[in-house]
Amino acid sequence: MKYLRIGEPGLETPVVSHEGVHYDLSGLYSDIDGEFLGRGGVSSVAELPVIDIAGQRIAPPIAKPGAVVCIGMNYAAHCAESGLEPPAEPVVFYKHPNTIVGPGDDVQIPRGSTRTDWEVELGVVFAKPASYLESEKEALDCIAGLVVANDLSEREFQIERSGGQFSKGKACPTFTPLGPHLVTLDEIADVQDLRMWSKVNGEIRQNSTTADMIFSVAHIIFHMSQFMAFDAGDLLLTGTPEGVALSGRFPYLGAGDLVEVGIDGLGSTANPTVQA
Amino acid sequence: MKYLRIGEPGLETPVVSHEGVHYDLSGLYSDIDGEFLGRGGVSSVAELPVIDIAGQRIAPPIAKPGAVVCIGMNYAAHCAESGLEPPAEPVVFYKHPNTIVGPGDDVQIPRGSTRTDWEVELGVVFAKPASYLESEKEALDCIAGLVVANDLSEREFQIERSGGQFSKGKACPTFTPLGPHLVTLDEIADVQDLRMWSKVNGEIRQNSTTADMIFSVAHIIFHMSQFMAFDAGDLLLTGTPEGVALSGRFPYLGAGDLVEVGIDGLGSTANPTVQA
Repeated sequence: MKYLRIGEPGLETPVVSHEGVHYDLSGLYSDIDGEFLGRGGVSSVAELPVIDIAGQRIAPPIAKPGAVVCIGMNYAAHCAESGLEPPAEPVVFYKHPNTIVGPGDDVQIPRGSTRTDWEVELGVVFAKPASYLESEKEALDCIAGLVVANDLSEREFQIERSGGQFSKGKACPTFTPLGPHLVTLDEIADVQDLRMWSKVNGEIRQNSTTADMIFSVAHIIFHMSQFMAFDAGDLLLTGTPEGVALSGRFPYLGAGDLVEVGIDGLGSTANPTVQA
Repeated sequence: MKYLRIGEPGLETPVVSHEGVHYDLSGLYSDIDGEFLGRGGVSSVAELPVIDIAGQRIAPPIAKPGAVVCIGMNYAAHCAESGLEPPAEPVVFYKHPNTIVGPGDDVQIPRGSTRTDWEVELGVVFAKPASYLESEKEALDCIAGLVVANDLSEREFQIERSGGQFSKGKACPTFTPLGPHLVTLDEIADVQDLRMWSKVNGEIRQNSTTADMIFSVAHIIFHMSQFMAFDAGDLLLTGTPEGVALSGRFPYLGAGDLVEVGIDGLGSTANPTVQA
């Protein structure tokens, strides 16, 4: 199944997409959230009313999560372009969940920013709590589905304005476009073999695959569950590959750009940038 | 006013305490959350039923916030004992909101931990959104009230296991005891003149005052609002003074200890430690 949400902020309608047809979930479920995903979502669309989503805003495909947990430096070539050594263990930081916006919403260039950058990332949404897991297999069983995310980052704020703690450049308003769909794991042949890309104004920037992760999705969840507890509905971002502006190879974003990220099977976002 | 919540996890009743008497808010309000605080809370207890809270669990005094935003290295003597230079600007990291527990709940020593540490902190709860504020005065107007917090920290996880990103040692389950009360700002004479302390097994550890902050509460909110948006109900922790185990002057926590933190006018927590 593919889940999505349509409508204006705060008034979203939950929808399920199956074989190209959209069905309205709002008669049965209030939202695409931890409670809904924890019950296993929907197994059949047979009884659901069809809904026409034409002309509607596509919202983030999940309700505001309890946390947005991010893994940094998880692709070796991105570590190199950032001037950092690949880490021995997953590096973690958080973004404020209120940074999430829809796949076509405006992204704000923060006031005072000169170094706003893009990061395509594979996002994982939890179907159940994960704490002190015993294996990587158990980790995969906690996943509700996958989503494409843009982990926007203001590099001066991230690296130079907070004693090296990343979150200051990661939690600016609108800095986490998500969507368009949350795709259940049964629709994905291999989590570690998904092509991923980003574009600015139609020009390719990142072009890589989840096969290049240093730590696999299953390992990240297993490992991090020894240090924290994930809740159903939480969002985990798993790091970005090479090809960001921080490398020096591309200009940073400014107002009036169009920034896109996509992952095979998960769809893509296309967010216009505006000055905050 | 002092707000608190009583009852078992997930079944908390909101309560207001005024001049030593407790009143039941549950007939009018569902929780002590951003919506309630954004409406200004209650201005009078005249019509409210009295409630006897004897024998009940004291819960965290606020509903699960949208984010727990933490300021690091905000007391010069704590920077020195941590081997770090005082920062030029506020340093920020996040904790998972699911780390919050009540003022008497068990704190779990994480599996594999040998360096679990305490940190008394002044917590600030937001009454309204704060983004791109124009002054420190405007920042103070965003505050619903204050709460004492223990920002528990596993120092190996925090410093050595995540490329220097603090959150890995900050978001272990039960690592944010809060309470017992959320105290509205009108009950506080001077936010920057509050004595704060911590104890382990009855022995004093930290003994300082909010006057020793490098960046004041008003400055932190004003400054951080240029980099992120706070929502009503969010929790901001404002840093810890010297006297933690990381200094080398005291042993770290183990199972079977009692760890207490308190701030004048806000009350105190007393959490037994258990092995996770």
